[in-house]
Amino acid sequence: MIILDGVGDRPIKKIGKKTPLEKANTPNLDKIAKNGINGIMDPISPGTRPGSDTAHLSLLGYKPKETYRGRGPFEAAGTGIDIKENDICFRVNYATKKDNKIIDRRANRIKKTKEISKSIKNNIKNIEGTEIIFKDSTAHRAALVLRGEELSDKITRSDPKETNKPPEKMEPLEKDAEKTARILKKFIQRAERVLKNHPANKKRKKQNKLPANTLLLRGAGKTPDVQNFQKKYGLKGTIISATGLIQGIGKIIGLDVVQPKGTTCGYDSNLNNKSKATKKALKNNDFVLLHIKGGDEVSHDGDYKKKIDFLENKVDSAIGNVLESINNRFLTILTADHSTPISIKDHSADPVPLSIMGEGTRTDEVKSFDENTYQGGLCRIKGKNLFPISLDLINKTHKFGA
Amino acid sequence: MIILDGVGDRPIKKIGKKTPLEKANTPNLDKIAKNGINGIMDPISPGTRPGSDTAHLSLLGYKPKETYRGRGPFEAAGTGIDIKENDICFRVNYATKKDNKIIDRRANRIKKTKEISKSIKNNIKNIEGTEIIFKDSTAHRAALVLRGEELSDKITRSDPKETNKPPEKMEPLEKDAEKTARILKKFIQRAERVLKNHPANKKRKKQNKLPANTLLLRGAGKTPDVQNFQKKYGLKGTIISATGLIQGIGKIIGLDVVQPKGTTCGYDSNLNNKSKATKKALKNNDFVLLHIKGGDEVSHDGDYKKKIDFLENKVDSAIGNVLESINNRFLTILTADHSTPISIKDHSADPVPLSIMGEGTRTDEVKSFDENTYQGGLCRIKGKNLFPISLDLINKTHKFGA
Repeated sequence: MIILDGVGDRPIKKIGKKTPLEKANTPNLDKIAKNGINGIMDPISPGTRPGSDTAHLSLLGYKPKETYRGRGPFEAAGTGIDIKENDICFRVNYATKKDNKIIDRRANRIKKTKEISKSIKNNIKNIEGTEIIFKDSTAHRAALVLRGEELSDKITRSDPKETNKPPEKMEPLEKDAEKTARILKKFIQRAERVLKNHPANKKRKKQNKLPANTLLLRGAGKTPDVQNFQKKYGLKGTIISATGLIQGIGKIIGLDVVQPKGTTCGYDSNLNNKSKATKKALKNNDFVLLHIKGGDEVSHDGDYKKKIDFLENKVDSAIGNVLESINNRFLTILTADHSTPISIKDHSADPVPLSIMGEGTRTDEVKSFDENTYQGGLCRIKGKNLFPISLDLINKTHKFGA
Repeated sequence: MIILDGVGDRPIKKIGKKTPLEKANTPNLDKIAKNGINGIMDPISPGTRPGSDTAHLSLLGYKPKETYRGRGPFEAAGTGIDIKENDICFRVNYATKKDNKIIDRRANRIKKTKEISKSIKNNIKNIEGTEIIFKDSTAHRAALVLRGEELSDKITRSDPKETNKPPEKMEPLEKDAEKTARILKKFIQRAERVLKNHPANKKRKKQNKLPANTLLLRGAGKTPDVQNFQKKYGLKGTIISATGLIQGIGKIIGLDVVQPKGTTCGYDSNLNNKSKATKKALKNNDFVLLHIKGGDEVSHDGDYKKKIDFLENKVDSAIGNVLESINNRFLTILTADHSTPISIKDHSADPVPLSIMGEGTRTDEVKSFDENTYQGGLCRIKGKNLFPISLDLINKTHKFGA
């Protein structure tokens, strides 16, 4: 399963009302469409604008409405924290606060936070009997987990989402969240004390960089109780991704998670290493999910040229490399988790293209992988249909009836 | 409604990657597609591999997830037993046991079991206050019904499904099934005593045929409480089928059931007589379901040549005969209950072709009845949508709203 994050788009006037996928020359992606069966897919449901997390859950056959309670658990699992059912998890940003206003939500896009994260971890282990687990992720990102009794994820974020505003108060949304709100308030205060005179921030001051002097929390979520992927499907699986959120989904549903060297969430990701990792994983797995994030990032930036370039010069050859290793044992599923139209620089509910290629499966007249795959034999399906359909095409479904 | 059982398929290399429906020359089937509106249909839902029973229920507008509790009730009703709500029913095979191992699951495909079935019926009428109803069906098949208090269908089968294995113990799957398990154990023991020295088996011994000396039970199910077809739709209906399971569905939902002379579940069925029976039924019914099983049987055998032959030389002319009698009063629905691809010799979840022809209904560009009907105006629908859509096309739906 190849998921090109955010690759679906809308027509762009400057390139003759074509979409980046229509415009880009992508012979390897088109090979899958040409030899497979095609359609379009609403990752969640028509008109529902998906997140990458909810969309991935849906495409993997997990019901997002039941299993999704915020991005926190996936972010936390993605950092490597061994989260447990009922943990309350948050996505954290290192940020810069001045005169009680957030002046940079990413503390000058601080790169290394291992050292200061360790200080927070070592200084704050328990508040009111609740275990505090804190871990750094890439760049300005980190995760916080509260583990204990009588906790709730029904709580607002502290991240004001804009600069020059004070951090928001984390408000309990239900009576049972008051204890959690109190703990979080204490946690942020204590973390700020740890950060205030931290050597890393003193060093940043000397370098004329903004200090990482506070933490912004968002994405509160309770760890869901989801069925293990292998138990659910009888398939041993691996996910290849450089994105914490997606890695976290893999960890929570029990997939092996691989982040190949030099891979990132962006245009600069080393997709050659992703291909290699995928080929390796195909040798001893029944299921491999290859996640490629760059197309989404350049879409959020509104850069259609870079999106076309990324598809033509990076994605297509990477997929070509992978295709060499795919034998009859495998079904190849090529799709996106959601559309991120250049024109709106954010996710949209536009359905995504879908091509499925496998030994003996039906085919159709579609010749290229783009938004016109709606003309193919799959017509329009929902994300939740993808896994059942795919399992049937590898003869792994149970018969309902006689 | 014409249901070509198991007719949907996947491309077959030996015939130029065509499906049997694409390859076969079927002018009468194509006439329906050409003059009608077309689409593909997931009998239950995308990726769900249907049985013939669950698919028929769905296509007739009955929810299989609510009404289907195993094939037993449909098999039993198909034999002519007048089953009642809450009866616990089983499909039964006459089989041959030696040294406590099943050496033939069909007792040499024994042909006549009327006589021995009568002996079982007359000798075993009641166990622990539970009424025992036993009846022969075609060839090695029979049905068993338990009628009484405190019975359960949550019980495993005795049929080991393979030869050279002992029959399985019928295990209760819930506490409330223990009494049922006890009754079934006693029933099988008593039936074996009846069969042991039965004249029919003595005769088989002389003919060097394996004796029918035991019974294998499977498909446990409690008779569902379903709404009568005529009450539900205001249509008087008849089902024309030679298949016990499908006849049973007809009986349970209250359709008249007709099995024309010389018709079978196979390639050898007299489809001419089925056409005649259909034409006759059209005269005094609002709804006629013509079920043709042979395409499924040859698919389970993996014989694509026979599937093409059956379609070209038997099915197409039979449908041609029926079409002569269809007037404007009727809508013609041509479809399958599920796909049975030659390549996998079993049901798959691949959607089935669907053509609906009626006076004044919309049409499209589709010219032939095969798996490419997805290009038509119905796009991709679910089996549960078929009856509501069809009722609307004959102006029999109620308006929802003003």
